[in-house]
Amino acid sequence: MADESDRLLAEIDGIVAEEVRPVCAEHERTATYPVDLVRKVCALGLPALVTDESDTPYPTELFCAAVERLAVGWVALAESVHLQTLAAVGPARHGSAELRDRFLPDLRLGRVIAGNCLSEPDAGSDLSLIRTSATRHGDGYRLDGVKAYVGHAGVAGLLNVYARTGGGGLGGITCFLVDAHAPGVEVQPPEEKMGVRSLPTARVVFSDVEVPADRIVGRLNRGMIVARSVFVQGRLGIAACAIGLAQAALTHATAYARRRSQFGSHIIDFQGVGFLLADASIEIEAARQLLYRACREADTGGARVELFAAQAKVFATDTAMKVTTDAVQVLGARGYTAVEPVERWMREAKLFQIIEGTNQIQRAAIASRL
Amino acid sequence: MADESDRLLAEIDGIVAEEVRPVCAEHERTATYPVDLVRKVCALGLPALVTDESDTPYPTELFCAAVERLAVGWVALAESVHLQTLAAVGPARHGSAELRDRFLPDLRLGRVIAGNCLSEPDAGSDLSLIRTSATRHGDGYRLDGVKAYVGHAGVAGLLNVYARTGGGGLGGITCFLVDAHAPGVEVQPPEEKMGVRSLPTARVVFSDVEVPADRIVGRLNRGMIVARSVFVQGRLGIAACAIGLAQAALTHATAYARRRSQFGSHIIDFQGVGFLLADASIEIEAARQLLYRACREADTGGARVELFAAQAKVFATDTAMKVTTDAVQVLGARGYTAVEPVERWMREAKLFQIIEGTNQIQRAAIASRL
Amino acid sequence: MADESDRLLAEIDGIVAEEVRPVCAEHERTATYPVDLVRKVCALGLPALVTDESDTPYPTELFCAAVERLAVGWVALAESVHLQTLAAVGPARHGSAELRDRFLPDLRLGRVIAGNCLSEPDAGSDLSLIRTSATRHGDGYRLDGVKAYVGHAGVAGLLNVYARTGGGGLGGITCFLVDAHAPGVEVQPPEEKMGVRSLPTARVVFSDVEVPADRIVGRLNRGMIVARSVFVQGRLGIAACAIGLAQAALTHATAYARRRSQFGSHIIDFQGVGFLLADASIEIEAARQLLYRACREADTGGARVELFAAQAKVFATDTAMKVTTDAVQVLGARGYTAVEPVERWMREAKLFQIIEGTNQIQRAAIASRL
Amino acid sequence: MADESDRLLAEIDGIVAEEVRPVCAEHERTATYPVDLVRKVCALGLPALVTDESDTPYPTELFCAAVERLAVGWVALAESVHLQTLAAVGPARHGSAELRDRFLPDLRLGRVIAGNCLSEPDAGSDLSLIRTSATRHGDGYRLDGVKAYVGHAGVAGLLNVYARTGGGGLGGITCFLVDAHAPGVEVQPPEEKMGVRSLPTARVVFSDVEVPADRIVGRLNRGMIVARSVFVQGRLGIAACAIGLAQAALTHATAYARRRSQFGSHIIDFQGVGFLLADASIEIEAARQLLYRACREADTGGARVELFAAQAKVFATDTAMKVTTDAVQVLGARGYTAVEPVERWMREAKLFQIIEGTNQIQRAAIASRL
Repeated sequence: MADESDRLLAEIDGIVAEEVRPVCAEHERTATYPVDLVRKVCALGLPALVTDESDTPYPTELFCAAVERLAVGWVALAESVHLQTLAAVGPARHGSAELRDRFLPDLRLGRVIAGNCLSEPDAGSDLSLIRTSATRHGDGYRLDGVKAYVGHAGVAGLLNVYARTGGGGLGGITCFLVDAHAPGVEVQPPEEKMGVRSLPTARVVFSDVEVPADRIVGRLNRGMIVARSVFVQGRLGIAACAIGLAQAALTHATAYARRRSQFGSHIIDFQGVGFLLADASIEIEAARQLLYRACREADTGGARVELFAAQAKVFATDTAMKVTTDAVQVLGARGYTAVEPVERWMREAKLFQIIEGTNQIQRAAIASRL
Repeated sequence: MADESDRLLAEIDGIVAEEVRPVCAEHERTATYPVDLVRKVCALGLPALVTDESDTPYPTELFCAAVERLAVGWVALAESVHLQTLAAVGPARHGSAELRDRFLPDLRLGRVIAGNCLSEPDAGSDLSLIRTSATRHGDGYRLDGVKAYVGHAGVAGLLNVYARTGGGGLGGITCFLVDAHAPGVEVQPPEEKMGVRSLPTARVVFSDVEVPADRIVGRLNRGMIVARSVFVQGRLGIAACAIGLAQAALTHATAYARRRSQFGSHIIDFQGVGFLLADASIEIEAARQLLYRACREADTGGARVELFAAQAKVFATDTAMKVTTDAVQVLGARGYTAVEPVERWMREAKLFQIIEGTNQIQRAAIASRL
Repeated sequence: MADESDRLLAEIDGIVAEEVRPVCAEHERTATYPVDLVRKVCALGLPALVTDESDTPYPTELFCAAVERLAVGWVALAESVHLQTLAAVGPARHGSAELRDRFLPDLRLGRVIAGNCLSEPDAGSDLSLIRTSATRHGDGYRLDGVKAYVGHAGVAGLLNVYARTGGGGLGGITCFLVDAHAPGVEVQPPEEKMGVRSLPTARVVFSDVEVPADRIVGRLNRGMIVARSVFVQGRLGIAACAIGLAQAALTHATAYARRRSQFGSHIIDFQGVGFLLADASIEIEAARQLLYRACREADTGGARVELFAAQAKVFATDTAMKVTTDAVQVLGARGYTAVEPVERWMREAKLFQIIEGTNQIQRAAIASRL
Repeated sequence: MADESDRLLAEIDGIVAEEVRPVCAEHERTATYPVDLVRKVCALGLPALVTDESDTPYPTELFCAAVERLAVGWVALAESVHLQTLAAVGPARHGSAELRDRFLPDLRLGRVIAGNCLSEPDAGSDLSLIRTSATRHGDGYRLDGVKAYVGHAGVAGLLNVYARTGGGGLGGITCFLVDAHAPGVEVQPPEEKMGVRSLPTARVVFSDVEVPADRIVGRLNRGMIVARSVFVQGRLGIAACAIGLAQAALTHATAYARRRSQFGSHIIDFQGVGFLLADASIEIEAARQLLYRACREADTGGARVELFAAQAKVFATDTAMKVTTDAVQVLGARGYTAVEPVERWMREAKLFQIIEGTNQIQRAAIASRL
């Protein structure tokens, strides 16, 4: 079993070295989505790990280890595989047998790229404000509303859309698996993001979009139960992305600091630099250990997985922000330019403190569970 | 006198509101240098404040207040005016009467854009490693070497070039005021920077560039004395840029947090957001007070101006990095996109922790003076 | 004028060197209140500076400078002079002519030690919860209730007691100047505090204490207006104490780090130590500048004095906590013992983050004013 | 096996609840060493776990888990058991069969309390400066010198003394197991420490102390090899103490914040408090995970145990300092008094950033291994 895990991780390392690193900077520059790479990685079985019966004893841990390795090479690729997985989590864990049979194979393999539509312009952290509505219409529903910051918007074929079917609050929301190419679905131009530009994010407008009743994921008015599964997995995957990114920055900055000489010494030998790197190494490892603890809780059905996942998400993403910012500092003026990848990594890191629940929201959730 | 100062600052505020804000984002997007705006601001007398006999009692303080106001609107413009001033500092304070008469009027008014050429690819923080050489040749000198991260490269008509004329170390370096268009001066393509893109920075290669002896700024082999004046002014100006930038971010994030509602409250009323902003307000004001203390030390000829300037530079730039990063956080996903200026401000802030002596170099200098 | 200020500060420095330093450690060890030193310092005119018509142009600034100097020598002495001043602020600024004439001379000179009784066991930060009552009784009032953490309890002859005379909330509270030795006033044994042990703090129980109506400070039911004056002055004085304490720690640790050798160098030359000290020097100076800005706002009747004072209090006290903790670190195992004063300073620093409004309360106040 | 581990930990929890908590505050107040409790805990098999052949698969992990549980109750007790274990590590891992047979049973069971004598007044972090000498004398050696900050000084019967037998530097040092009551061993009065006062620390002076040659631990001039084993175990044990202490503080502060009401809410519901506690919970768990990773490396003979142990030590002890300081803050004025244990915990926490290699020394070691 460990052999299979090791093989998977080694395979990913190989793809990163040979296929990812050579192309990622150009993809980011031109904001081009790497659909073939995403499919290739999905085909290795990543989404399947957490959306299928797996005989791996710790599938979530292995999934996160794999995402972390990908993120060492290219965060956007790692996040896309993560988003693809997230889009499959709802159908896999809450969907009807029919829904699972029909859609999961394509979702797992990335043959159909997919996304989740949760946030709205006025409903960011507070999902009780969701206004997108799904009203009964014949045998099915009609969707109307605007979803914001939809990852994979424009490249996705399927979207999990959370819409209001009942009263106000969190209780009357339902999740629908919607064809992204259905009439009435309009994807706005992608957001111009500070980083992770190759992965498109955009508003999606739903205008009288017809959705059959059998596309409900989980139960009517119980969409937040589906969302909760997605949130837990979302925190874990983002933590894995952040750790990989931070690790890449540390490795790169350490190599530079060992090589670069000023004042007659390698700059790593100045404690002003060396201590930054030492602290980074500690915090990255701490983040990693927090993540794997949360994964084990997930894999063993532990009751505290939401708490553990939130703790890992906050710590890992704050660490990535700090470490990447410091990595630019270690490289100095050179690090501030596109000659080196660290400036891009710093821009990318910021995203993770925000998405899948801002770190403020996570802290509030943690405090309420203490 | 206070009236004149107030008038100057009000004039700058007006320019910022009417001429700067409407154009800055587009300039940054297209990396276009705003030469007209730089000249307009210089013509208000900014470089002159610290490079001329002034009857203002606290010219450095007024200069920094003005730069800070500019930076609230557009950091690149503020920094360009600052760099222009820095390029005039050497000639103004150390140049011969002839040099001053001939060049300072144009430098002060920005009619000729100018820069400093100090760092080299292998001599970043450690200037004793400077290898650019100036060798006697007839009545003058011939310059050979490569300078790195030259601000205003490509738009400058004059460059203060620090070159080795004597032995090794810091003692044998001379400052020359060189025509940027002289034969043998080659400006490389501008660096692709994370931010402050409208202000070009590039390598400049000097190949057998003839420089008359009367272009020496200060004395032969005593270029580091000139450099030291530049360094002090450099720290002050960068601190002013950083404070203006941080202030812009705080103002913007506070306005957003007062407006944005989630969970039934304006988000500023959640202490997780409100405390971030409160801390930012404290730190920005602390940075400002440190800067003005250093300015007063400069304006009164105090002996500790280098120490005070270094303290202000470190604190102001670390504050700008923290506050802009937090400002993106307060705006959430929206803040991560170019719809809002905060993502740009965060990218810009990083520069200031690096230039004019990294914050590590500053701390080493401070510790040695305790 | 500057001469007088300088003379006052020099006088304090002299007292600190000759009379304070030799005795403070023993006073702290035995928790003995230094009443003679407090009176001596008060007699220099410190409380008078901010509770009398002064011809000093910046009396608050001078007062804080003086308190800071005292705190460099002994924080408990500085705080006691500060508390004595605070006890005079209410009568001086809000008291009737009669009250002022009768009590202020003794208060200013420390002939009668005095205190403020605000907090209660259940009303710490939230003064609307005050339950101590003052009920009409003949010509005067009868006080009943329990006040907590009363500074100067047991050594004070007069107490400003805030008691409920009207309805609930902040509106029905009145300030009374009460004889501490009146029948029914019972001082509990002093709290066993982590530091600042020579300055007693205790609960005071009021049981049917008769107070004449002419002892009301300010107006009936308007005690919070009196309290607000006290709060502003309180923040400033605590900030001054904290800055003096931090300065003492920095000076001490720097001297040690310059002297102590390990691995063939003075330990200040290791950036791991030197940068701690450099940062401390920056933060202390920033705190000082914030404080003096707030003092100038007070001395010029500025409208933002509460905001500025809160900002100074938070930054100064957080700095003191950090710097003293780091100072122990620089001295290592030796610093952890009573052979050196730094362990005491660290214990003392913690108090300031808590009293005169916790730093959390201050931040909430600041955020609400942004 | 897990059963036995659980039983051991449960037994410790029981002792903590019934025998430790009721007495620890008084012991600390009077600086009285709890010899019976130390023996009782040792008799549970704690030192034996890491100094004997154990059939537990992860003895270091179990040892640290046990120390952490003890530290939740009383840090001094936990540290004493840790020091006792450290004193046995040298003989157990490097001692001759004779030395092990003769001394280990008593050391493991705490029947003879023991300590390590490494630091000297001038040799703190830099052990190459050790000047205590052991010179050949007849069949044995004669020890002369002064050791500083010797834990268990005055209560120990045996001391591992590191003395110079060869040339300078780290190469000529030998470890001797010395009778603490031998003629010529003089224990100075205990240091007056800021905290952990019940565990005595003092200078020990060795004057012509005769030590038989068979008391050498390990090999002549190879004492640093013994020391290195001690250092690794030392870092792990201190990390465990720090984590237990931080956990106690978090648990206590959380309970208080859930109970205490101000402004109509429990204070934990103010994010200014809740976020402090959330962050503390994250950092404590991260520290714990780092520690167990290091323990597993130790238990599986991994090559990176020194690095991992250093990382755990730095993070755990910085966390303990931060969390205990914040815990006092959460309890406010009450927390600053001996009515609550948090002020003591804050004083205790500082020790751990210093001992077993300051966190600066650890960071330097980590940076050199990156």
